Amino acid sequence: MSTASVNFKARQSIEQVEEGNDLAPKFDDRGLITVVTTDATSGELLMQGYMNAEALSLTIATGEAHYFSRSREVLWHKGATSGFVQKVRELLVDDDQDCIWLRVDVSGGASCHVGYRSCFYRRVPVGSSGDVELEWTDTEKVFDPVEVYGDAPNPTKL
Amino acid sequence: MSTASVNFKARQSIEQVEEGNDLAPKFDDRGLITVVTTDATSGELLMQGYMNAEALSLTIATGEAHYFSRSREVLWHKGATSGFVQKVRELLVDDDQDCIWLRVDVSGGASCHVGYRSCFYRRVPVGSSGDVELEWTDTEKVFDPVEVYGDAPNPTKL
Repeated sequence: MSTASVNFKARQSIEQVEEGNDLAPKFDDRGLITVVTTDATSGELLMQGYMNAEALSLTIATGEAHYFSRSREVLWHKGATSGFVQKVRELLVDDDQDCIWLRVDVSGGASCHVGYRSCFYRRVPVGSSGDVELEWTDTEKVFDPVEVYGDAPNPTKL
Repeated sequence: MSTASVNFKARQSIEQVEEGNDLAPKFDDRGLITVVTTDATSGELLMQGYMNAEALSLTIATGEAHYFSRSREVLWHKGATSGFVQKVRELLVDDDQDCIWLRVDVSGGASCHVGYRSCFYRRVPVGSSGDVELEWTDTEKVFDPVEVYGDAPNPTKL
């Protein structure tokens, strides 16, 4: 795959960043920018991740979502292991350009390493206090993580 | 307003965090958790922010979105200045409980300090490389930020 890269502009003024046409993303002190990924059809939130400059450039150039895995500390072409590649239908940037929104189509329909379609399969009851119990919004796994990932380490950190 | 608080559980195992009913959020080394806020009706991404434990507890207990402002370093009841309060219709947590998804109704329909409905009003053309130009998806401001915020400092940091 060719790796044509994207030029990011230097951040020079609030007006340029908020009201201009320059792509001048703000990477944090770890070199990362926050990414929000929703299903382009249903609007459902699939996952929230991070990109470094290389991942953002590759995502724009190839149209397939690339992230930076904080737990594994590597560039991460989403779907390279599981097959659930995310095709980017639309890529947006927020007002101060420190967040990217990907609207994607997911082949196979799964985005969560636990096996669910979305990472967000539990709800906190609003209006409650004290001890709260999570409620499940999705109880059916789309795939078996053991079959797909084998004995790869679980990315969740306590 | 009463400030009944919510008890968060200690994180003890991956199974508990990923597949249990305990609310055991992971706050980062700054004491913050990432929040993604979408319009409950349209599915549109309105903003991405952060909560500390107090903001998360208040959001759950009151049903109105509270954040922690990193630029101002204060608890932030969204809409306290602008009037654009976010009523939480659904609050979800992700697999490893380091991200919160709020599905909200916004009175007045604006969530962005620049004056747009959503913070995400510009698109990066996918499949491009080299110099890219942002494309505008929303060119009509819902409110005039100068009227609403007066001379309060702009939260965007370069």
